[in-house]
Amino acid sequence: KRTGFPEVIYGEGKTADQIISIMKAIQQNNNNVLATRVSEDKAEVIVEQFPEAQYDSRSRILYWKLQNDAALQREGYIAVICAGTSDLNVAEEAAITAEVFGSNVHRIYDVGVAGLHRLLDHLEEIQGATVSVVVAGMEGALGSVVGGLVSHPVIAVPTSVGYGANFQGLSALLSMLNSCSSGLSVVNIDNGFGAAYNAVMIDRLANQKSRE
Amino acid sequence: KRTGFPEVIYGEGKTADQIISIMKAIQQNNNNVLATRVSEDKAEVIVEQFPEAQYDSRSRILYWKLQNDAALQREGYIAVICAGTSDLNVAEEAAITAEVFGSNVHRIYDVGVAGLHRLLDHLEEIQGATVSVVVAGMEGALGSVVGGLVSHPVIAVPTSVGYGANFQGLSALLSMLNSCSSGLSVVNIDNGFGAAYNAVMIDRLANQKSRE
Amino acid sequence: KRTGFPEVIYGEGKTADQIISIMKAIQQNNNNVLATRVSEDKAEVIVEQFPEAQYDSRSRILYWKLQNDAALQREGYIAVICAGTSDLNVAEEAAITAEVFGSNVHRIYDVGVAGLHRLLDHLEEIQGATVSVVVAGMEGALGSVVGGLVSHPVIAVPTSVGYGANFQGLSALLSMLNSCSSGLSVVNIDNGFGAAYNAVMIDRLANQKSRE
Amino acid sequence: KRTGFPEVIYGEGKTADQIISIMKAIQQNNNNVLATRVSEDKAEVIVEQFPEAQYDSRSRILYWKLQNDAALQREGYIAVICAGTSDLNVAEEAAITAEVFGSNVHRIYDVGVAGLHRLLDHLEEIQGATVSVVVAGMEGALGSVVGGLVSHPVIAVPTSVGYGANFQGLSALLSMLNSCSSGLSVVNIDNGFGAAYNAVMIDRLANQKSRE
Amino acid sequence: KRTGFPEVIYGEGKTADQIISIMKAIQQNNNNVLATRVSEDKAEVIVEQFPEAQYDSRSRILYWKLQNDAALQREGYIAVICAGTSDLNVAEEAAITAEVFGSNVHRIYDVGVAGLHRLLDHLEEIQGATVSVVVAGMEGALGSVVGGLVSHPVIAVPTSVGYGANFQGLSALLSMLNSCSSGLSVVNIDNGFGAAYNAVMIDRLANQKSRE
Amino acid sequence: KRTGFPEVIYGEGKTADQIISIMKAIQQNNNNVLATRVSEDKAEVIVEQFPEAQYDSRSRILYWKLQNDAALQREGYIAVICAGTSDLNVAEEAAITAEVFGSNVHRIYDVGVAGLHRLLDHLEEIQGATVSVVVAGMEGALGSVVGGLVSHPVIAVPTSVGYGANFQGLSALLSMLNSCSSGLSVVNIDNGFGAAYNAVMIDRLANQKSRE
Amino acid sequence: KRTGFPEVIYGEGKTADQIISIMKAIQQNNNNVLATRVSEDKAEVIVEQFPEAQYDSRSRILYWKLQNDAALQREGYIAVICAGTSDLNVAEEAAITAEVFGSNVHRIYDVGVAGLHRLLDHLEEIQGATVSVVVAGMEGALGSVVGGLVSHPVIAVPTSVGYGANFQGLSALLSMLNSCSSGLSVVNIDNGFGAAYNAVMIDRLANQKSRE
Amino acid sequence: KRTGFPEVIYGEGKTADQIISIMKAIQQNNNNVLATRVSEDKAEVIVEQFPEAQYDSRSRILYWKLQNDAALQREGYIAVICAGTSDLNVAEEAAITAEVFGSNVHRIYDVGVAGLHRLLDHLEEIQGATVSVVVAGMEGALGSVVGGLVSHPVIAVPTSVGYGANFQGLSALLSMLNSCSSGLSVVNIDNGFGAAYNAVMIDRLANQKSRE
Ligand SMILES: Nc1ncnc2c1ncn2[C@@H]1O[C@H](COP(=O)(O)O)[C@@H](O)[C@H]1O
Ligand SMILES: Nc1ncnc2c1ncn2[C@@H]1O[C@H](COP(=O)(O)O)[C@@H](O)[C@H]1O
Ligand SMILES: Nc1ncnc2c1ncn2[C@@H]1O[C@H](COP(=O)(O)O)[C@@H](O)[C@H]1O
Ligand SMILES: Nc1ncnc2c1ncn2[C@@H]1O[C@H](COP(=O)(O)O)[C@@H](O)[C@H]1O
Ligand SMILES: [Mg+2]
Ligand SMILES: [Mg+2]
Ligand SMILES: [Mg+2]
Ligand SMILES: [Mg+2]
Ligand SMILES: [Mg+2]
Ligand SMILES: [Mg+2]
Ligand SMILES: [Mg+2]
Ligand SMILES: [Mg+2]
Repeated sequence: KRTGFPEVIYGEGKTADQIISIMKAIQQNNNNVLATRVSEDKAEVIVEQFPEAQYDSRSRILYWKLQNDAALQREGYIAVICAGTSDLNVAEEAAITAEVFGSNVHRIYDVGVAGLHRLLDHLEEIQGATVSVVVAGMEGALGSVVGGLVSHPVIAVPTSVGYGANFQGLSALLSMLNSCSSGLSVVNIDNGFGAAYNAVMIDRLANQKSRE
Repeated sequence: KRTGFPEVIYGEGKTADQIISIMKAIQQNNNNVLATRVSEDKAEVIVEQFPEAQYDSRSRILYWKLQNDAALQREGYIAVICAGTSDLNVAEEAAITAEVFGSNVHRIYDVGVAGLHRLLDHLEEIQGATVSVVVAGMEGALGSVVGGLVSHPVIAVPTSVGYGANFQGLSALLSMLNSCSSGLSVVNIDNGFGAAYNAVMIDRLANQKSRE
Repeated sequence: KRTGFPEVIYGEGKTADQIISIMKAIQQNNNNVLATRVSEDKAEVIVEQFPEAQYDSRSRILYWKLQNDAALQREGYIAVICAGTSDLNVAEEAAITAEVFGSNVHRIYDVGVAGLHRLLDHLEEIQGATVSVVVAGMEGALGSVVGGLVSHPVIAVPTSVGYGANFQGLSALLSMLNSCSSGLSVVNIDNGFGAAYNAVMIDRLANQKSRE
Repeated sequence: KRTGFPEVIYGEGKTADQIISIMKAIQQNNNNVLATRVSEDKAEVIVEQFPEAQYDSRSRILYWKLQNDAALQREGYIAVICAGTSDLNVAEEAAITAEVFGSNVHRIYDVGVAGLHRLLDHLEEIQGATVSVVVAGMEGALGSVVGGLVSHPVIAVPTSVGYGANFQGLSALLSMLNSCSSGLSVVNIDNGFGAAYNAVMIDRLANQKSRE
Repeated sequence: KRTGFPEVIYGEGKTADQIISIMKAIQQNNNNVLATRVSEDKAEVIVEQFPEAQYDSRSRILYWKLQNDAALQREGYIAVICAGTSDLNVAEEAAITAEVFGSNVHRIYDVGVAGLHRLLDHLEEIQGATVSVVVAGMEGALGSVVGGLVSHPVIAVPTSVGYGANFQGLSALLSMLNSCSSGLSVVNIDNGFGAAYNAVMIDRLANQKSRE
Repeated sequence: KRTGFPEVIYGEGKTADQIISIMKAIQQNNNNVLATRVSEDKAEVIVEQFPEAQYDSRSRILYWKLQNDAALQREGYIAVICAGTSDLNVAEEAAITAEVFGSNVHRIYDVGVAGLHRLLDHLEEIQGATVSVVVAGMEGALGSVVGGLVSHPVIAVPTSVGYGANFQGLSALLSMLNSCSSGLSVVNIDNGFGAAYNAVMIDRLANQKSRE
Repeated sequence: KRTGFPEVIYGEGKTADQIISIMKAIQQNNNNVLATRVSEDKAEVIVEQFPEAQYDSRSRILYWKLQNDAALQREGYIAVICAGTSDLNVAEEAAITAEVFGSNVHRIYDVGVAGLHRLLDHLEEIQGATVSVVVAGMEGALGSVVGGLVSHPVIAVPTSVGYGANFQGLSALLSMLNSCSSGLSVVNIDNGFGAAYNAVMIDRLANQKSRE
Repeated sequence: KRTGFPEVIYGEGKTADQIISIMKAIQQNNNNVLATRVSEDKAEVIVEQFPEAQYDSRSRILYWKLQNDAALQREGYIAVICAGTSDLNVAEEAAITAEVFGSNVHRIYDVGVAGLHRLLDHLEEIQGATVSVVVAGMEGALGSVVGGLVSHPVIAVPTSVGYGANFQGLSALLSMLNSCSSGLSVVNIDNGFGAAYNAVMIDRLANQKSRE
């Protein structure tokens, strides 16, 4: 296994049957598996066939672990930070992905910049992370604010939450790309999975050097 | 005089001669005058003809007061807040405009969200204002952050400062329009004058009710 | 209470259950509440649990007042002006919000610039307001025209009404941001709530200085 | 001659020499000629070779009439209406073009919607036209307002005048395409020539039926 | 009646009931009426109440004439030209509108530029019109080609027909605005009504001078 | 040599010195060379060092042939067709490239769709080509029209010629991508070289099968 | 028959009845027919009437061959290459179209650039084609990579597969237009048919010269 | 010092004098300094005053180290990979930044995807890095290709290199955001500095855990 990561299936636009047959192929290789963007309807069908699979409806992630990762005790943690309740789904896509990949996750939710004090209440916890994933829609300002408060890498995820001149996440995307805080990099709109993938890579480099 | 505001000339794309002849017409009505976006070159030519006019090179504003506004003692003040040194010109266009229009102005500059502590150092001064003008380029997050900290109206001015996916101020504009903080309204990119005009109107409503 | 404003819930994308549980939390603090973007379906479910709540289907606002605001007699009023019948929903989001927040509102509807005389018929009433909220879709010209007729602040709300090169409200948004009338500021497309919030702030500064 | 229109040369991006040689070819056919977008520098070189040619620096049009159009006495006129002094060049491109093509033109300039009374002062003159050309930048609201006041065709010309969210004339263009006034059609940004061409066609249909 | 045009109702986003009550108000003034963008469902409800009203499902226009326009015999005609079968609805919106407004219409359909000979087969008929309305989606090239073949005004209507880089009609809109043919003006995407309104105005100026 | 094509240098943004040193490296391999987008200034410096190199100022191509291609007698030809004189540079970039690569080229210039008869005058010559390169700016309609007239592949090159809503070639690009004519494919704006490269490949497949 | 191609019907937005009546007209001319973008529902209705027609649900193509093309034995083949399973539909639109038009097709699927080795495994097969059609969504990088590996023409088809900053295929479209590989040309987003049409033309020029 | 990073000055839009006075302030704190986007002209003036400062004209970086970082011996290295010679400036901004910040850098330049073999020649070196910075303009495909070949984090930098439908780097930006390779995150167009900053953070986490 080159990467030490489970096999990943992007569920959007695939039928339950297609996902099942990909999972069967993976099973033969005795691998872990993680499928993102799986609707509740499809998940039901799939879990019937793979009773060992688990489904999380908020993140829409379906996963299943054959290998025992108990040995992977890490010290550090990834902070998954999000602005509002509407960004929860994407934040959970990041958080669950990171956990399935074996990282420790601290969830710091509902700390949008309109109420700065709530964010500052968690300052120590945020600064203590090895890497942060910041999930925010609308104006995406949370990325810059967190970036300015920490000295570790920040992966920013713009979300498509908003209306009007939000243009399906464009406002948050541009905002994060233009951040005046150093140490921010950006993934695609709503791509919680991708952010977690990056964060886990960094987490492993920092906290599990002996492992790979 | 309907508005109690001086005559305003938008200097961009007008020759020194055109500005002079407009100013002559205004002079006959014995009015105050304020010209924005006047380059240093043009200003020199104009001031030669109107020695009573003053020019401020940072804001590129040329103005001239015949009426004595001494009577206009106000209590409150407008906070003009800006993120970085590159936003200074626009911030000064706002600040000078507000002062020429008779408002008190507190300048709170270089308090971008990448260094939140600097902004929080001025919290009391910002919260004490009647209305704030927030000038920011790049990701324009300062608008939301200030909006969340105060309970008075905030006029946000996106600036064209930045590069790449900034698209000449589009990122800051979209950011401010999508702010999750209530109480923010937005003017055109780089329109320090327009923001000040709105702020002065509100300042007058709040602090000079007897005047109009 | 820092702002003297009721608690606000943005209803879009929240289930009736989520709204109900937020409202319960607020109730314990004995506060007023206002929820925007609540569909008729959800409203029915919510009102069953909160019989004291009122629902307005045109503005899609659900609100509920425990505190008695009778004492808040103001002198001035906010003019809510809109172009066509298709902008009514957004205009009502603004008008009801302002009323729930305790301001007086004058509704001046169906006065688009294609029939200028209708607008001019209401000139005195418009000019008499403390602040105007102008709601318009399509080309959004009403913002500039009203801005030119009054000497008080105008909050412009572009709406997504239109088709073709309207691009979901972009035409009205750009139009209002580029207005040649001074004294206009702009909020997000369809954001009647945000415009009202700003207008109420200004109304309070102008007409209720003693209150805060 | 199919159209009865002079030959037209689009001067932008052509050298003085290229324009001269095209003009020589036309001369042999003894035709009228009109060249748009000719800079002062090029015009000087060309006029030296064609002393009978006339150059108008505001519209940047160079033209030259061999045929005598004296017979073309028309009754009606085209109203060329523009918002601000910055739109003058484009308005003059329209006005001069129409005149060279043999139409009567009434210029009604500097009547932007921010000062509605100025526009209404010319109402009768505008309504008396056979067709109007409305030239406006920034928010382009003048198109809709004039369209609502007249019952003849209006050709709207958005100009690239403005800054920030104007995006080189996009705001005025979208505004005019989305006009709520019936009877408006639109030409390309800054295309005063094209608007005049359309207006003259309509003028001829209305006032010179016998001619063609 | 200032314009001599029937009352127009834009049906999109209006309920059958709303349309009926507007029509009742108009009836009292004994006027003609034309409603665009009326779905078949709504039309059925409306026609039950107004048996004298006629509905055309292709153009989605519902109209009703009380005044007898028999006297309005005109000589000229409007050519309504369209590229493909997918543009038919918009073309019919233009054609029916023009006919209800009292103009003669020649329909020249399915003559897209990919089969130039079909267009050229109708050359004489097209050139004989007083004014043309050209309706085309995708690349909108038909506007330029017709514009080059005729010496009368052409009103171009981009349609939203297409997919991919068509961007809901943007490709045809830009194409028509940038036409290298003189004598073209453009209305909003899918705005068959607006094009007809302009064409009828021109038709009246040319062919019914005595009437107004 | 895998492709049988000369080495190609993209001259834009390279200094004369950089181009010279790349050419020296190529010379050692005794290859042909073709450099596009070379300004007249740079060309002068380069030709001094490579007296055998030829420079064509209209296409801004500098090339140099060591191998004798005399043997490559082909039967077919590429038609390079362009709309107006402003598209000449790009058309020549295509034509010269194709010739240096060993294809026969027929130039059919100044045949824009506004004057269809000029295009039709060359119909036989165009239809006789193996493949056509169509170069057009503004509305780019020429691509569709030629595509409809021929039954061989058409490579369309949008140019950045135009102004206003042309947006640096976007209008022609979208137009060509949305062509209703089958058999059209598109290259980047102003990419005459790329179009020629494709055309030559097709020409070789058709006319020189034995060669490769 | 000018082109030697079957008649083509674009099924999108046409009813089953409309498609049937077009097919009847074609039948009378005894021609082959190919209809793209036909939904399963419509196909069922049509096949009932034309039992000789075949429907392929993945490509959504319905076709029907009366003429016997057995004589058309070709030597070369078209490579249809696609990145992921989500691009399959568009790839099949291309592949089936090419086969119905009489070309040989090699399908090389699921060879996205994220797993370069899979692509390289098929290198010889890809390089052996006469022309390649490359179908890819998301970042569209496959176009450039294949373009760099082969020396025959590549027709690139961007697909609308993706989310977020993909903007319905814009990312892949721009990517392919800006390819640094020579020999690529591009068709509209999701236009598998158009790509096949071009590829077949080239295939015929290369492999069937005697036929036309 | 919180971050252990030198002070950074963004030189764009600052005068030499402004940069000098910022550098003087920093000097008093005895810190390292790095200024990006410094033109050769400004650099000359600055170096006169700070003879210990070094200027690199390709990256336009001016830097100056007072502290001795000799102790910072790291094991790993950052791979800075770029596509073409036109991306060199941005790649060097990344490389020099990383080196001044104390990381080891391997430069792997001119390995664009059009010539895949050149990239594969460096495969081992690339895979051996702790983190990669991939700099590419035009279609930005290099990001995805490298991302697919390595199992460490990749920071992608789109550059504004290109023309036409490149839209100043938009094509590469969208391409990289939509990458089908996991493990990619993106910074602003041309932001070599920002990419290096992120890479160095990761490098320190991986290779210098004891240090901070
Ligand atoms: N939410 C997501 N966003 C983007 N890529 C994803 C996502 N989930 C999975 N992927 C990627 O999609 C690939 C699997 O795609 P597929 O082969 O279509 O199932 C994996 O290698 C992941 O890198
Ligand atoms: N129509 C609206 N548009 C924008 N923001 C709103 C709207 N209604 C409520 N809000 C804001 O959303 C916040 C509540 O969001 P939430 O916590 O998601 O319910 C409030 O503080 C308001 O500032
Ligand atoms: N298809 C259409 N597109 C644009 N405007 C229209 C259309 N149909 C009607 N209208 C205009 O809409 C106005 C009526 O709008 P309303 O008052 O909302 O019914 C009329 O005066 C027409 O000018
Ligand atoms: N998928 C497709 N995309 C684009 N054009 C197509 C497609 N399928 C068919 N066509 C074209 O559409 C024409 C038929 O259109 P229609 O007359 O509307 O059926 C054919 O000549 C084809 O060139
Ligand atoms: Mg930081
Ligand atoms: Mg606030
Ligand atoms: Mg005003
Ligand atoms: Mg009118
Ligand atoms: Mg014409
Ligand atoms: Mg063809
Ligand atoms: Mg190749
Ligand atoms: Mg990887």
